[in-house]
Amino acid sequence: MSVAASVFRCVSLAVAGLVVLAASALAQSDPLPSWNDTAPKKAIVAFVERVTTQNTADFVPESERIAVFDNDGTLWVEQPMYTQLAFALDRVKLMARQHPEWKDQQPFKAALDGDMKALAAAGQKGLAELIMTTHAGMTVEQFQKIVTNWLATARDPRFKRPYTDLVYQPMLELLAYLRANGFKTFIVSGGGVEFLRPWTEQVYGVPPEQVIGSSIKTKFSMRDGVPILLRLPDVNFVDDKAGKPVGINEAIGRRPIAAFGNSDGDLQMLEWTTLGASGPRFGMLVHHTDAEREYAYDRQTEFGRLDQALEIAPDNGWTVVDMKADWKTIFPWE
Amino acid sequence: MSVAASVFRCVSLAVAGLVVLAASALAQSDPLPSWNDTAPKKAIVAFVERVTTQNTADFVPESERIAVFDNDGTLWVEQPMYTQLAFALDRVKLMARQHPEWKDQQPFKAALDGDMKALAAAGQKGLAELIMTTHAGMTVEQFQKIVTNWLATARDPRFKRPYTDLVYQPMLELLAYLRANGFKTFIVSGGGVEFLRPWTEQVYGVPPEQVIGSSIKTKFSMRDGVPILLRLPDVNFVDDKAGKPVGINEAIGRRPIAAFGNSDGDLQMLEWTTLGASGPRFGMLVHHTDAEREYAYDRQTEFGRLDQALEIAPDNGWTVVDMKADWKTIFPWE
Repeated sequence: MSVAASVFRCVSLAVAGLVVLAASALAQSDPLPSWNDTAPKKAIVAFVERVTTQNTADFVPESERIAVFDNDGTLWVEQPMYTQLAFALDRVKLMARQHPEWKDQQPFKAALDGDMKALAAAGQKGLAELIMTTHAGMTVEQFQKIVTNWLATARDPRFKRPYTDLVYQPMLELLAYLRANGFKTFIVSGGGVEFLRPWTEQVYGVPPEQVIGSSIKTKFSMRDGVPILLRLPDVNFVDDKAGKPVGINEAIGRRPIAAFGNSDGDLQMLEWTTLGASGPRFGMLVHHTDAEREYAYDRQTEFGRLDQALEIAPDNGWTVVDMKADWKTIFPWE
Repeated sequence: MSVAASVFRCVSLAVAGLVVLAASALAQSDPLPSWNDTAPKKAIVAFVERVTTQNTADFVPESERIAVFDNDGTLWVEQPMYTQLAFALDRVKLMARQHPEWKDQQPFKAALDGDMKALAAAGQKGLAELIMTTHAGMTVEQFQKIVTNWLATARDPRFKRPYTDLVYQPMLELLAYLRANGFKTFIVSGGGVEFLRPWTEQVYGVPPEQVIGSSIKTKFSMRDGVPILLRLPDVNFVDDKAGKPVGINEAIGRRPIAAFGNSDGDLQMLEWTTLGASGPRFGMLVHHTDAEREYAYDRQTEFGRLDQALEIAPDNGWTVVDMKADWKTIFPWE
C-alpha cells in the first residue's frame, strides 16, 4: 500500500471509528433500554460502575467478576410448568409407542393423559422416574440432538412460540451489559445441565462450560473403537437450594460477586454470593408481578415458589425487580 | 482533533503498528522456544495452523477450541511422589500434635515415619483415610489458605525449590501458544481440584473455573449469619482414567479437540478427545526419558505409570514427547 493510500485508508478508518464511537456512546448512555428508570436499574448500574472504577477500594479485577444467573423464571418463563417438564412429557408420548404398558402405569399414565393432578400426586419419586426414563439410556451426543430437535418444533401453550423465544429481554441486556464490563456470566440452574447446554450459547451468549445444573451420572466406554458417554438413570447432582453454592464451588471455585434469581431455590446462592464476604456484592430477585404480559405468582405457586427469599431480601440488601413496574419490555419479540 | 492532527496520529499509529507487527512476527517465528525442532513441535504447530486457518474444511471456531491438560507429570513434576501426597504427609505431621494416638496407628504411623513401604501397604483405603483426615473438616476458604501457605514454604526434596517452580517450561509455552491462538485451556487432573485452584491461575494462566479435578463433598450452611461451605470426609468424584471424560463432560459440556497427558490415567481422556469425532484432533503424551535433568520412568513406576497408553499411541496417531530429545529446557529457572 502506498503512503497516500495508507493515509486515505487511515482517514476512512478514523471516520468509521467516529461513527462506531458515537453509536457506542449512545448505546452506553443506556445499556439497559428495556428497563424502566426505577430503583433496580439504578442499583445495577451503580454496582457495575463501582466494581469497574479503577484505583478505588471497591474495584474488582476482571478475573473475579463472576456473575451467576438462575434460569427458570429468571432468564426465561417457567409457567405453566418448567420447560424441561414439558420436554419430558412430550418424550413420554413419543416413547409410549414402545411402552404399551404405560397407559395403565403411573406416573406415565398421568403424563400421557396430561393429568397434572395425578402427576403431582406421584410426587418427587414419580417425577424422578419420568426424568430418568426420558433423559437416560442414550449417549450425551444423542441427548443433545433430542433436545435441539424438540426445541425446534415445540411451542409454548400460551404464547404459541418456541420456548427459546420466551426469554426476558431485560435479562438479555443485563447479561450483555455485565459481559461488556468484564464479567464472566454463568447459569446456575436447578434444571438439567445437558438440557440447557445445547442452546444457551446461541440464546444467552453463555457457552456450555459456563452452565451449571443438575445432572445424572454418565459412564465412559469404548464401543466398536469409538468412545461414548452413556447417560445412566442415576442422579449425580441436584443443583437447587443448598446445592447451588456447592455446584458453584465445584464448577467455578470462587465466590461470585453478583447473583440473580427468582425463587427460594436461589436463596442459598444469593446468600453465598452476598453475605459475609469482603468487597461489593450484588443480589437480585425477579418478582413475577405481571399477569397480563407474563405471569403473577410468588408464595402459592408450584414452579418457582418465592417466599422466604422475598421475606429476607430487604435485610440482606437484595434488589427486588417488580416485573410490571420495572420492565418496559418483557420479551425480545414484543 | 483537527483533520491534520488526526492524519498525523493515524500515520504514527500505522508506524507503531508496523513495529508491533514485526515484533509479533519475530515472536511468532518461534512460539515454542524451549522445544527442539523435532517431530512433536512440528506436529503441534501444524495442528494449530490447521484449525485456525479460516475458510478451510479444518477450521475450528474459537468457541470450540478446547484443550485439556493433565497436571501431575504433564505440567509439573510428579516424582518422587505426587505433590499433593507430600502435602498430605506434611499435614499429618502438623496435625499429629493433636493426635498422639497416630504414632501407633496406620496409615498415620507410616506417614509420620516417612515409611513409604508401609504407606503403600496401607493401599487405596489407607491413602483415602490420609486424604480425608488432612483435606476435610474445614471450610473451602480455610483449605485454600492452608494450601497457599504450604506451597509458600514447602520445598521439593531433589531440586530444593518450591513445588510451583517445578513446572515444565515447554508446557508453559504450549499453554500460552494455544491461548494466543484462541484456545481455552483446561486442567483435568486426578489430583484434588481444591488443591490446584489456589495457584493455577498464577502459575499456568488457567483460572479456577477451568480446573477440573477429583473432589470431596461439601455442605452449605449458615453459621452465625455467615454462609460457609464445609469440606466433608466423603469422596465426591474421582477424576482419573474413565472418570476424566466424565469430568470433562460435566464441567465443559463439549468435547475437547486437543488433549495432553503423560500416563495411563490420561488414556480415556485422549480417546474421548481424539477418536470417533469429526474434525482435526490432537493427542499428546509426555514420556519421561531424562533421568539427568528430571526423571526417567514409564511402566514400572508408582506415580504416573505409562504403559497401555504408550502402547496404543501410534495406532491412534498420538504424538509422544521424548523429554530428553524434544525439550531444550525443562524448567523455567534453568
